[in-house]
Amino acid sequence: MNQIDRIETNQRMSRVVSYNGMVFIGGLTADDASQDIQGQTRQVLKKIEDYLAKAGTDKTRMLSAQIWLKDIEADFAGMNEIWDAWAPEGAAPTRATGQSKLARSNLLVEIIVTAAA
Amino acid sequence: MNQIDRIETNQRMSRVVSYNGMVFIGGLTADDASQDIQGQTRQVLKKIEDYLAKAGTDKTRMLSAQIWLKDIEADFAGMNEIWDAWAPEGAAPTRATGQSKLARSNLLVEIIVTAAA
Amino acid sequence: MNQIDRIETNQRMSRVVSYNGMVFIGGLTADDASQDIQGQTRQVLKKIEDYLAKAGTDKTRMLSAQIWLKDIEADFAGMNEIWDAWAPEGAAPTRATGQSKLARSNLLVEIIVTAAA
Repeated sequence: MNQIDRIETNQRMSRVVSYNGMVFIGGLTADDASQDIQGQTRQVLKKIEDYLAKAGTDKTRMLSAQIWLKDIEADFAGMNEIWDAWAPEGAAPTRATGQSKLARSNLLVEIIVTAAA
Repeated sequence: MNQIDRIETNQRMSRVVSYNGMVFIGGLTADDASQDIQGQTRQVLKKIEDYLAKAGTDKTRMLSAQIWLKDIEADFAGMNEIWDAWAPEGAAPTRATGQSKLARSNLLVEIIVTAAA
Repeated sequence: MNQIDRIETNQRMSRVVSYNGMVFIGGLTADDASQDIQGQTRQVLKKIEDYLAKAGTDKTRMLSAQIWLKDIEADFAGMNEIWDAWAPEGAAPTRATGQSKLARSNLLVEIIVTAAA
């Protein structure tokens, strides 16, 4: 039975769970939700990089991403501009982008990533 | 080629699929959709426990969860109260919570879990 | 460290990522978005089959699917009719269906599949 490793785990959730060569990162949102879509996207991608590093991997080993936007019509292009500058060309993950209201009303984007260890 | 095992499989879907040390549980909703968010969340979490047991694992080995609420503003706190009492402290999965209308209009919550076998 | 293989990869995303015996396919939508829900669903399922084949697997080895509908009330039944005729009985994946506005306003359905290699 392979080991399960967890980072920043509490009663509700773990931020990162590693198992069997896979790294699961929970849905991440911006800490400063007063920023616009580009600022919030930058914050989320920075967090993803930091958690990937803590799990011993990096953004060239991402497998899949889900991106949830509060307002996909207004913010799809703005999010993509930041994402495209950040994603590793030739090593980008699969992606799906949908619209969802998020846990607090000023959150504009939440991203869920799965990576290889 | 590793074996794929399925539980409660029909023409449309399987409730659980196990492969390579991973257990995928499909989106689960309450059978009694007349209940409020707390009652429906309790029902869904009970179902998750039952399917995890059928797959030979348990809630301390969950890897990731997605929670879809019909009305995240109204029901986030109520869902969390039940979730927090149920989730295994120190072994909680990653989590992402979004808003989505569900397959029937009186369904308030759907949860998708991935676990280690 | 196991190898990560990617199909149709660009600056933004890869269409398919394979790793460790798992195949991740990104969210797929219809190329001809003038079609109704049944036509769009048929297009998406055809694309899934094609990408599964390119990754060396097939629809009997799907593990999980997420289906996002722009209008779940209007289109759940229509999508299911096409899905049920396509899904492999006895080998269907787990499934979760939610509602989400998609990247372009005339897209009615997006499907994300994970499969065994």
